[in-house]
Amino acid sequence: MAGTEIEALIRQLAKLPGLGPRSARRIALALLKKRETMLDPLVRALAAAAETVKICSVCGNFDSQDPCAICGDPRRDGTAICVVEGVSDLWAMERTAAFKGRYHVTGGVLSPIDGVGPEDLRLDRLLARVKAGGVSEVILALSATVDGQTTAHYIAERLKGTGAAISGLAHGVPVGGELDYLDDGTISAALKARRPL
Amino acid sequence: MAGTEIEALIRQLAKLPGLGPRSARRIALALLKKRETMLDPLVRALAAAAETVKICSVCGNFDSQDPCAICGDPRRDGTAICVVEGVSDLWAMERTAAFKGRYHVTGGVLSPIDGVGPEDLRLDRLLARVKAGGVSEVILALSATVDGQTTAHYIAERLKGTGAAISGLAHGVPVGGELDYLDDGTISAALKARRPL
Repeated sequence: MAGTEIEALIRQLAKLPGLGPRSARRIALALLKKRETMLDPLVRALAAAAETVKICSVCGNFDSQDPCAICGDPRRDGTAICVVEGVSDLWAMERTAAFKGRYHVTGGVLSPIDGVGPEDLRLDRLLARVKAGGVSEVILALSATVDGQTTAHYIAERLKGTGAAISGLAHGVPVGGELDYLDDGTISAALKARRPL
Repeated sequence: MAGTEIEALIRQLAKLPGLGPRSARRIALALLKKRETMLDPLVRALAAAAETVKICSVCGNFDSQDPCAICGDPRRDGTAICVVEGVSDLWAMERTAAFKGRYHVTGGVLSPIDGVGPEDLRLDRLLARVKAGGVSEVILALSATVDGQTTAHYIAERLKGTGAAISGLAHGVPVGGELDYLDDGTISAALKARRPL
């Protein structure tokens, strides 16, 4: 159909999450049509990211510096650590601007089916950070799935005796959500955790 | 939020057609997580495409060679030219494997509102190809929109007197389509163009 270089480009683009052959073809054509404004800047951005972005040795975040901007920021509250599964969750927390402490990225959740055990997650480093002292609260912001909650309980168990208060995100009705469209589990959880107005 | 290089990468990715900030973040993270298997091959594929892919001077197709593989293929029927708006339409035609002739990419359709006139399309070169002789049929495979059909009529007018037969794609019920979900215009067109069974 197209030249081998175009086909190779489409194959690489189609591997990206959320893209299929059709959207990859569309993107490849758009890139080839606008070389100066799209293709060249994208190549430069990719190369720059590949060269400079590293994993923060403290929390596991992606940043161009190590420790990352959050771990190195003296204005952030070092007594609170929010544990998240991945960097995308860390970014989601940061967008809310509701948390002023530091983070710890586990890199996933325990999943016996997928063969993910405690040694595959960044848990020893979390324990070391808490044990090193100065941490008074650990917030487990893991997914509200079975694996996520199992992981939360496992981490809470491991952190027992360190003196840090351990909490998890509240379950309940999403802000702006309609009861009619919510699943039973969420409604039950919201009812159980009801609070006085 | 993230490092400047990551944010620059997300900004570039979000410019691609069909992608928004959320999908761009997801893709950026996936690329950073899998450098060897995703990021590096993508950079290489982009750089190779940027370096080798050019526009065919005959038909306007994208290919690593000029004339493109279709224009240079002696087994393709040089007496028939299929006129398409863009390279994506050329690829769509090629996927059907129903056309064995050559192509001509106009690069768009006439659109007074968007300020696209005949001089902005690759029409003079089409006329020159047909006038050079050896072309007995020109198939106008342009969009079935007002602009597309206006362009088709304009091209047909320009090609008059060259001796080439000029045709357009048939309008009708899409294969596998249900009447109930079709618009009135398509059903009327299919009825008008009804054929004996």
